[in-house]
Amino acid sequence: MKFVRFTVESEVFTGVLSSEEIQVVSGDIFGEWDYTGRLFSYHDVQILAPLEPNQVIGIGANFVTSVEELPEKSPELPVFFFKPTSSVIGPDEEIVIPEAIEQVKFESELAVVIGKEAKDVEEPDVFDYVFGYTIANDVTAPQFFHEDGHWMIGKSFDTFTPLGPCIETELDPLNVFVEAKVNGNEKQNSPTHLMIVSIQKMISYLSRVMTLKPGDVILTGSPVGAELVGDGAVIECEIKEIGVLGNHFVKRK
Amino acid sequence: MKFVRFTVESEVFTGVLSSEEIQVVSGDIFGEWDYTGRLFSYHDVQILAPLEPNQVIGIGANFVTSVEELPEKSPELPVFFFKPTSSVIGPDEEIVIPEAIEQVKFESELAVVIGKEAKDVEEPDVFDYVFGYTIANDVTAPQFFHEDGHWMIGKSFDTFTPLGPCIETELDPLNVFVEAKVNGNEKQNSPTHLMIVSIQKMISYLSRVMTLKPGDVILTGSPVGAELVGDGAVIECEIKEIGVLGNHFVKRK
Repeated sequence: MKFVRFTVESEVFTGVLSSEEIQVVSGDIFGEWDYTGRLFSYHDVQILAPLEPNQVIGIGANFVTSVEELPEKSPELPVFFFKPTSSVIGPDEEIVIPEAIEQVKFESELAVVIGKEAKDVEEPDVFDYVFGYTIANDVTAPQFFHEDGHWMIGKSFDTFTPLGPCIETELDPLNVFVEAKVNGNEKQNSPTHLMIVSIQKMISYLSRVMTLKPGDVILTGSPVGAELVGDGAVIECEIKEIGVLGNHFVKRK
Repeated sequence: MKFVRFTVESEVFTGVLSSEEIQVVSGDIFGEWDYTGRLFSYHDVQILAPLEPNQVIGIGANFVTSVEELPEKSPELPVFFFKPTSSVIGPDEEIVIPEAIEQVKFESELAVVIGKEAKDVEEPDVFDYVFGYTIANDVTAPQFFHEDGHWMIGKSFDTFTPLGPCIETELDPLNVFVEAKVNGNEKQNSPTHLMIVSIQKMISYLSRVMTLKPGDVILTGSPVGAELVGDGAVIECEIKEIGVLGNHFVKRK
């Protein structure tokens, strides 16, 4: 099932997408919801980020190039970071390159949407707490990484977290390819089994630190091939089973 | 004016505290609100964290010991970090020391509560966007800092961000002392003019990166004297004009 958020004449709706038709729903998608009976065509609406996240959590450098490079053991202490919810935008919105720099880095990622409060979850039980999956572009300005290792400013600029186009609730996340094209040219294309820290380990680890909440979004890391791009570049992040998250980069004037 | 959140028989209220009496208010404290006419005595209620933050942002190592040590220039790129909202607790709640470690660090801090959406704010205008001030204890497990410099896990455990006891809207934040006592012994006591990055610079800088929202809480850094403490320690963080934020540490079993 594919959940979308969208606007029609400035009104915000949530709906379920099937082929080109959206059936409007009301209520809480993580709890009780129902169809309202209202319908829209996908082509008549403006698609938004598929949720307003409670929090956005990312994991650093989580893909290898080939199965042979996978480490025998997962790192003791994976690198996690937060991105502000204010950085979230939807499909087709502009990614704004901050003043003082000319380029930013794109990173296509599979994003997990938590659906139930999760604390001290064992690895085999992780998927009981997942609502679904969307695509994220973890845009980064490495020029603003602190020399002592802190990534916060470099990952926090407004527009730096495109999400979308939908939340797919019926995905097998261990068996998809994470892709990115820039101006039509393939830059990233890796299967999720090349993750160093698996989705199960990632969520189990986080849940032993902090209580995960419905609406928390976890960016699971980006395949090799992420690059710096500048004003005018068009990025398409894709996971075939979810869709295409397209945005373009503009230099802030 | 001192805003508090509290429970009486499991119901959550917001109110205005004057001496020992709380006048209940309804509505949005950042927007339209009004008195309901209901009154409680401060001693008959359980005080909660004074807000459910939208986001929690902190700044690293921001105090010097004396005016002579203040650098002539503010750092180009201050160290900022996020703490998860799931780590927030109120006064008198337990701070839980995670399994596998015996001690955590307390850090008494002045916390700024943003009241209006703030983007690209100049330093002299910063206080127009501030709703008020509370006290934070930025609890940290440095044992979980990543060797590459990332603080995320070490600052994100549940219960690691006590806030309270109230939001004081009429404070001069440039002219207060940030104090902490452990088991009754003074450990921190510094005036806010010993901050390296001033509140004006901090909020102006952040607002040029990200849109700050009502309910965002900014922890402004901790004075010298923060220490590791263990099971049973009692911490009182104090800013006289706001109150005392008291908690105790317990080892997770």
